[in-house]
Amino acid sequence: MHDRAVDALVCARIRRMIAYTPGEQPAEAGFVKLNTNENPYPPSPRVEEALRRLKPEQLRLYPDPLNQRLRQTIAALHGCDPAQVFAANGSDETLALCTRAFVEDAGSIGYFVPSYSLYPVLADIRGVERRPIELGENFEWRMPAGYGCSLFFLTRPNAPTGVLYPGADVRAFCERCDGIVVLDEAYVDFARESGLRLALDLDNVLVMRSLSKSYSLAGLRVGYAVGHADLIAALFKVKDSYNLDRVSQALAEAALSDQAHMRANVARILATRARLRAALEGLDWTVCPSDANFIWARPPGLGAAEVFARLRRRRILVRYWPGPRTGEFLRISIGTDEEVDRLIAALRAVAGKDAP
Amino acid sequence: MHDRAVDALVCARIRRMIAYTPGEQPAEAGFVKLNTNENPYPPSPRVEEALRRLKPEQLRLYPDPLNQRLRQTIAALHGCDPAQVFAANGSDETLALCTRAFVEDAGSIGYFVPSYSLYPVLADIRGVERRPIELGENFEWRMPAGYGCSLFFLTRPNAPTGVLYPGADVRAFCERCDGIVVLDEAYVDFARESGLRLALDLDNVLVMRSLSKSYSLAGLRVGYAVGHADLIAALFKVKDSYNLDRVSQALAEAALSDQAHMRANVARILATRARLRAALEGLDWTVCPSDANFIWARPPGLGAAEVFARLRRRRILVRYWPGPRTGEFLRISIGTDEEVDRLIAALRAVAGKDAP
Repeated sequence: MHDRAVDALVCARIRRMIAYTPGEQPAEAGFVKLNTNENPYPPSPRVEEALRRLKPEQLRLYPDPLNQRLRQTIAALHGCDPAQVFAANGSDETLALCTRAFVEDAGSIGYFVPSYSLYPVLADIRGVERRPIELGENFEWRMPAGYGCSLFFLTRPNAPTGVLYPGADVRAFCERCDGIVVLDEAYVDFARESGLRLALDLDNVLVMRSLSKSYSLAGLRVGYAVGHADLIAALFKVKDSYNLDRVSQALAEAALSDQAHMRANVARILATRARLRAALEGLDWTVCPSDANFIWARPPGLGAAEVFARLRRRRILVRYWPGPRTGEFLRISIGTDEEVDRLIAALRAVAGKDAP
Repeated sequence: MHDRAVDALVCARIRRMIAYTPGEQPAEAGFVKLNTNENPYPPSPRVEEALRRLKPEQLRLYPDPLNQRLRQTIAALHGCDPAQVFAANGSDETLALCTRAFVEDAGSIGYFVPSYSLYPVLADIRGVERRPIELGENFEWRMPAGYGCSLFFLTRPNAPTGVLYPGADVRAFCERCDGIVVLDEAYVDFARESGLRLALDLDNVLVMRSLSKSYSLAGLRVGYAVGHADLIAALFKVKDSYNLDRVSQALAEAALSDQAHMRANVARILATRARLRAALEGLDWTVCPSDANFIWARPPGLGAAEVFARLRRRRILVRYWPGPRTGEFLRISIGTDEEVDRLIAALRAVAGKDAP
């Protein structure tokens, strides 16, 4: 009927691009899962209460397309107006919406390398120029003079390194950037400080938060952005009509209302992070200082790829990215103390004589 | 600091465009809600069971980014391969993804007028040419000779009219269209026939389905698409990494596994639709033949805008779109028999002497 390949129906730039690959979610149980920065502790008991209160009958009706109650809760948390808050189906949704609301066809998207590997993929989907910035020797902030772009994704603390750039540098960059700066703060609850104030002070800054890590709700897909009301209004124009379902809105509100639970889990994770760091240094690993719920570190001897493979055979998953710089390191999510003990024992074993 | 209006940070085409407006979701209770085509009956009891089985602890972990179990369930339902199935956060997500996967910057998006008013908004967000086709006098299929576009959204049955175009016309159009045809079948379970076969036979056709209407799950946001595996693969490349959360995947699977429940609800709605149609004709309304869970009809006398306003004062919501053609009609969702009885009584009252 049609004398052409099916492929010809797909946009050239989509055919060419390589999709983002999420970390492995093993189908079988029994893995120690330290590869995707999930929280090892359950969400607030208020999430369970909200789940039990849900009646299937309510799911018959469309959700609030404006996510108003949830946005009010978030606004109260940060001392701003609900008009300065956008709620989304995971922070990934907001990141993608930013590429459509704030980048013209001739525009560009900037980000650090290494950083969240979704950013270049979003630039490719949007079909605009990528403007990557190589980080320094120790993955520190390094911004060339005169650098500019339409939209910069500034991950702070950064992933996969865990590094928290100095607040003064971030503010200075936001003040001189002509485009929009998105401070991607997915990991900020594990850090010493946040840049939220910048989103309230400067009209070109959006701060993004996620409930996936500190609130133990990676499976629910809720994130939010805070910034100038005009930027938030632009995101509303390009979002899907009902981007957050009724269950997500209700459970996210419940989780955010229990800051004490979140803070207590974060405190446990920070204590375990310190233990893991000390243990890795004891095994002669080079450890990047972390402000996140993971550690970025270089093993001695075998090399990261080999350590990754040996851990996997012992059913311990960590994250490994091949490549000239990332390929020397592993990213290890902070699990429970028991999980981290199993990891440390396994690392001792694979580095020692009983390695396979 | 920045010597420019905040507005200048927003893309020109996003500043210019007018966003889609969803139907009213009243904050107060007590309305007879016949305005957004929700199902008046609750979802399958299996949805409740799935909801009760959910443990908040599971929400700690990311969902399956490939939605595999859900896609297997859908594939089994339609006798196709899971590689031919895409699952999404509502059909709206898939519609938006199609504009990015299948339309080049110089491409165009086609749709009928009147039809789902989201389509032109999606063309504006994507920044490509709109190619609307005016329907005939009685909202019937009317396609000019030589018409072409990169992506055509063909709603069947159409909304807001409820008209089911002849299957032979649809197949002939799909066969000669150089671009992709999306058969938006959100309402198909209320219709006499579906075009699903076309998505399995032709490599340029995608059929979209929604769980919002026939499965009573508008609040959950789940839809899916069926078509050639290469088109589905392109949608995967442009989607957000985890587009469906764990709750949505589990509850959608439960709902789809209970076809008998869905069919029984649909049968009740079709019976009520016949009653409403007869009652409206008895009140001298002009009623469009409907294959959907709503009726598109023109009131005599007062005019649609006035009837809409008078019903609203009586706390009955129907849908009204101002404009040269749609402004003469109202779209009335099929509720329970009791709700439809209240509507009919109110229509008698507003048309008669006791009108305010």
